[in-house]
Amino acid sequence: MSTLKDKLVIQTDKELTSSPNKVSIVGVGDVGMACAFTLVQKGLVSDLVLVDILQDKLKGEMMDLQHSMAFVKPVNIVADTDYKVTAGSKVCIVTAGVRQRVGESRPNLVNKNVEIFKSIIPQLVKYSPETIILVVSNPVDVLTYVAWKISGLPHNRVIGSGTNLDSARFRFILGQELGIAPSSCHAWIIGEHGDSSVPVWSGVNVAGTLLKSLNADAGIDASARKLDGLHKKVFDSAYQIIHLKGYTSWAIGLSVATLIQSILRNENKVFAVSTLIKGFREIKDQAFISLPCILGSSGVIGVLNQHLSQDEAEKLKNSVSIVVALQNRIDIKTPEK
Amino acid sequence: MSTLKDKLVIQTDKELTSSPNKVSIVGVGDVGMACAFTLVQKGLVSDLVLVDILQDKLKGEMMDLQHSMAFVKPVNIVADTDYKVTAGSKVCIVTAGVRQRVGESRPNLVNKNVEIFKSIIPQLVKYSPETIILVVSNPVDVLTYVAWKISGLPHNRVIGSGTNLDSARFRFILGQELGIAPSSCHAWIIGEHGDSSVPVWSGVNVAGTLLKSLNADAGIDASARKLDGLHKKVFDSAYQIIHLKGYTSWAIGLSVATLIQSILRNENKVFAVSTLIKGFREIKDQAFISLPCILGSSGVIGVLNQHLSQDEAEKLKNSVSIVVALQNRIDIKTPEK
Amino acid sequence: MSTLKDKLVIQTDKELTSSPNKVSIVGVGDVGMACAFTLVQKGLVSDLVLVDILQDKLKGEMMDLQHSMAFVKPVNIVADTDYKVTAGSKVCIVTAGVRQRVGESRPNLVNKNVEIFKSIIPQLVKYSPETIILVVSNPVDVLTYVAWKISGLPHNRVIGSGTNLDSARFRFILGQELGIAPSSCHAWIIGEHGDSSVPVWSGVNVAGTLLKSLNADAGIDASARKLDGLHKKVFDSAYQIIHLKGYTSWAIGLSVATLIQSILRNENKVFAVSTLIKGFREIKDQAFISLPCILGSSGVIGVLNQHLSQDEAEKLKNSVSIVVALQNRIDIKTPEK
Amino acid sequence: MSTLKDKLVIQTDKELTSSPNKVSIVGVGDVGMACAFTLVQKGLVSDLVLVDILQDKLKGEMMDLQHSMAFVKPVNIVADTDYKVTAGSKVCIVTAGVRQRVGESRPNLVNKNVEIFKSIIPQLVKYSPETIILVVSNPVDVLTYVAWKISGLPHNRVIGSGTNLDSARFRFILGQELGIAPSSCHAWIIGEHGDSSVPVWSGVNVAGTLLKSLNADAGIDASARKLDGLHKKVFDSAYQIIHLKGYTSWAIGLSVATLIQSILRNENKVFAVSTLIKGFREIKDQAFISLPCILGSSGVIGVLNQHLSQDEAEKLKNSVSIVVALQNRIDIKTPEK
Repeated sequence: MSTLKDKLVIQTDKELTSSPNKVSIVGVGDVGMACAFTLVQKGLVSDLVLVDILQDKLKGEMMDLQHSMAFVKPVNIVADTDYKVTAGSKVCIVTAGVRQRVGESRPNLVNKNVEIFKSIIPQLVKYSPETIILVVSNPVDVLTYVAWKISGLPHNRVIGSGTNLDSARFRFILGQELGIAPSSCHAWIIGEHGDSSVPVWSGVNVAGTLLKSLNADAGIDASARKLDGLHKKVFDSAYQIIHLKGYTSWAIGLSVATLIQSILRNENKVFAVSTLIKGFREIKDQAFISLPCILGSSGVIGVLNQHLSQDEAEKLKNSVSIVVALQNRIDIKTPEK
Repeated sequence: MSTLKDKLVIQTDKELTSSPNKVSIVGVGDVGMACAFTLVQKGLVSDLVLVDILQDKLKGEMMDLQHSMAFVKPVNIVADTDYKVTAGSKVCIVTAGVRQRVGESRPNLVNKNVEIFKSIIPQLVKYSPETIILVVSNPVDVLTYVAWKISGLPHNRVIGSGTNLDSARFRFILGQELGIAPSSCHAWIIGEHGDSSVPVWSGVNVAGTLLKSLNADAGIDASARKLDGLHKKVFDSAYQIIHLKGYTSWAIGLSVATLIQSILRNENKVFAVSTLIKGFREIKDQAFISLPCILGSSGVIGVLNQHLSQDEAEKLKNSVSIVVALQNRIDIKTPEK
Repeated sequence: MSTLKDKLVIQTDKELTSSPNKVSIVGVGDVGMACAFTLVQKGLVSDLVLVDILQDKLKGEMMDLQHSMAFVKPVNIVADTDYKVTAGSKVCIVTAGVRQRVGESRPNLVNKNVEIFKSIIPQLVKYSPETIILVVSNPVDVLTYVAWKISGLPHNRVIGSGTNLDSARFRFILGQELGIAPSSCHAWIIGEHGDSSVPVWSGVNVAGTLLKSLNADAGIDASARKLDGLHKKVFDSAYQIIHLKGYTSWAIGLSVATLIQSILRNENKVFAVSTLIKGFREIKDQAFISLPCILGSSGVIGVLNQHLSQDEAEKLKNSVSIVVALQNRIDIKTPEK
Repeated sequence: MSTLKDKLVIQTDKELTSSPNKVSIVGVGDVGMACAFTLVQKGLVSDLVLVDILQDKLKGEMMDLQHSMAFVKPVNIVADTDYKVTAGSKVCIVTAGVRQRVGESRPNLVNKNVEIFKSIIPQLVKYSPETIILVVSNPVDVLTYVAWKISGLPHNRVIGSGTNLDSARFRFILGQELGIAPSSCHAWIIGEHGDSSVPVWSGVNVAGTLLKSLNADAGIDASARKLDGLHKKVFDSAYQIIHLKGYTSWAIGLSVATLIQSILRNENKVFAVSTLIKGFREIKDQAFISLPCILGSSGVIGVLNQHLSQDEAEKLKNSVSIVVALQNRIDIKTPEK
């Protein structure tokens, strides 16, 4: 067939190996593949790399994506068990890790996944020293901290997918209640991506009108109950989907792709993602936890000084302490420089 | 919470239940969900309905898609085991059925799936008498015929996803060989979606230049061997992906979504889809098989009188006879009018 | 050439004249064409109709858009001086009218444009009795009222593009100041689309954090001066662009297309558009003015009970009275039913 | 206001000035702005730069585009009369030049525009030595040659928009005749972008079926007349639009944006664009003329060895000689290295 190419194409320039917008994904499980497929359909990346240790699954997923190429903006898709193919990635998405089982709390996963990260992160940094690492594996906050420590990258270039998805669920549930599109419902969940996450009820608004102001006459107790019920619905829904279909995939895929878009296009949009919290709100711990962050070409460009009620600030502190307690049980050595 | 809505929103019009672009999907397996997620991300539909008999899986998938709403153009997503929710669908996609096992030929599936179709198709037509039915379940050609017979719909409104995906695979493989984007490589596979499919090598071209003309001096035998090798690669790849990852999903999802787009937007693009072949090329059998069709608002608007070499025409006849032979073993009764 | 078609295409269904998503635009000046081109590029509509009295310009614009078809999702584009071609439009956009001259206030335009509307609106309603009318011509609030009166349509189906663009400008200017993407800066301008428009400073927020709370220690006067300066910048920018390039086009085109999207896809997003204000905030006048509205398939689905400071509420009342004063000088007769 | 930013945003990283996907446009006339607006709406670029000598128009257009930012994926838009702002552009689009008047042939423009290019091209190369230059100004073939000579860039990085638009018009006209979407009608016009352009009728096809084969029994003369009529319709349409609306804009904007997409995303799609023809088809002249080219990250990656009938090959030679004759009358000095 090479003869056919020679007959058809007169080469004027040797084919280019540069990769204007290259993204690598480690882990081709349901979450990794939802991320991959979303990126392919969005037309955001020029080069997509899949890495995993399961050779068969890896090849099957690569071929399935490649066969989509006639239907989307072309993407160069490669897959390998060797990290060499990730060289020059703008962003590396890490979805690898043991999956949360039904009934298993996120923290329980941590030790198994730290070991896995010790084999992944150094390889990514070796081949793409300028990359941004986006951690999706759970428990995401601790693992983002782990990725930061192992990678030796500046903290703005190590990001956890955090509560961006929790916030999206919050907006959907609000939107359903109000008969309004979720994108017009502004609501944030910050803190740990998990049971101690903090809904910032004090700032929930539609068109700038704070919902708490509308609810004022219901009395503090009634409002608080409503809030608690709503928030419970949000974080229950993750467990519920895992119970019902075995895992979550579509929404986390789109959540991650949206973050990648803001980074690759330098959009400076604001998202709740897991970032180094040390120094914010007089917190002295080196922990990663979700706060509203501005995402651009160099990762986290800035963190918002978000207004919190006293109650919310307390809950955030509590959330940090839960993450820190978990962190303290892990042994990571920073690589020698 | 309803109080909150009353306080926030002053209703000027009772909320609308009309559905400008409603699509229903029967079957929430890997293929059905790849179709659903692709449609959600494309922003093509205003209303998406999922139907299946597996209540838990159904609810889990619905919730997972719904949580994506903050990241995409909003879609109203509902799911139910009762077909009532499909009422008023512009298109119904049928992906339900027993899946092809490794080593199992497509034809073996047919009897099990005919029974399943007998329970699905009448329900779809009952609630959406003006709908277009797009069959994806395998063996797709026979099942499209079955859907047509059971539904009593005009033949232009019953379509099988057919060899649109095979053609896309062909274009990808060609594109890889030539260093050219698949969308600039024009190649068609027609006939049965299966082992007897027919690559129309006589029309394969890039920028109007027929590849067979470039290969002329290789001699007829060499060309034929090349062709056979390439075509084998195409239909092997389906079996290969099933072997490697257990099923195919991403490419078929995008393939189907592309067909839906041409129908919903009345685009009149040409695709290789399974259509009633009776009357074409002097074929007298009532069979469905893939030919290049123009797809618009009323389904198949026209079928192209595609040029075939004598060899290709023979192969197409053979492909039809294989489908017909399989069909003859099924017992379907057309519904009384 | 018709022979060629007969030879190539075997018709299975007579070609469809239905128009799944038809939009008509009256007026092919710079604003009308920016709307048209934006809609074509967005792939939102299946059918686009242009109407104007300038035959040459009309034909030239139609041809120029049609030649784009190989680059976008196909749209059926027609143009005529006869309103017959608009039949069955889901939305009719009215951009016709005498343009605001440099130095001319919006109100001065009103009488000339009322006359023009008397010739346009009845034609639109005649051919598309179920349509939604979106008025873009200036002064937009009074002309939306005029279109409502002349059309005899329910008020939820007559909408003015209003301060959606003003709000977008506000967000851009804020975004520039803060180094944050405009879509993450939430700020609303309501009231008249013109000099008396009201910036709702009390609700301006990023991630739910009200900017006024950050600015509290600057003292009320300093804050007020900042606000006034910023708002002045917003409404000055319209005059400035008219001065610099002669007219505004790109941003209003995208503003309108975004509204159309929420209507055609039944998205229920919230936008500041001109709507009948009677009954809101104890206002008794039948006037159209911008408030945050939920837009869906039937037009304005609901109006938000937006929180306003006392000062902002006063300014809104003042804005209404300005529009009403202008309205009172016009003579429109509602059509006999 | 800077205080407000300091209060809201805690900077974690100094703001980035890198520009992942920067494109500059020289000339903010109707064509330049149609290119700019199309790129903004496509979400392809992260940074867009406008350059012109008309300060007012330049600022007005910049502001109008900037006000669109709340409706699209964010783009950083700047405008200046100083080329310094173009530094680091991946692609520079040149639309500047005197416009073709009604009745004026393209060649007449050349001398005026060569002078203009002498002031533009060196500035672009100075600030972006690795850029690709895409020439849109007319007569495009000669001016692409001129840009190549002045720039000193390798020939694969200097491209003329050429007959990509002519080909799109051809496909639209065919599509209208056949009732098929233009993107399913494959037809190429090569050679000079102008009166001597060459429709490659021998390769016109739908689904691989050559239209000339369908028309065979009409006799050679009848076919030739049909062809000539159709081609005449294509190149007449440019003059017709200029006559009707004064200029062409929308289709050329989308044509250019489509080329840019293939370059920025390294898509390797095939387009008819103006490229150095020397060495092809035994042509010895250093001229730029449109041939089917593969466009990727480094510009023209390859040129297709397109099949031409003897008649078409003759016409192409004639077209080259017309361009060469025009070229010979220009005096350009290549910059000293």
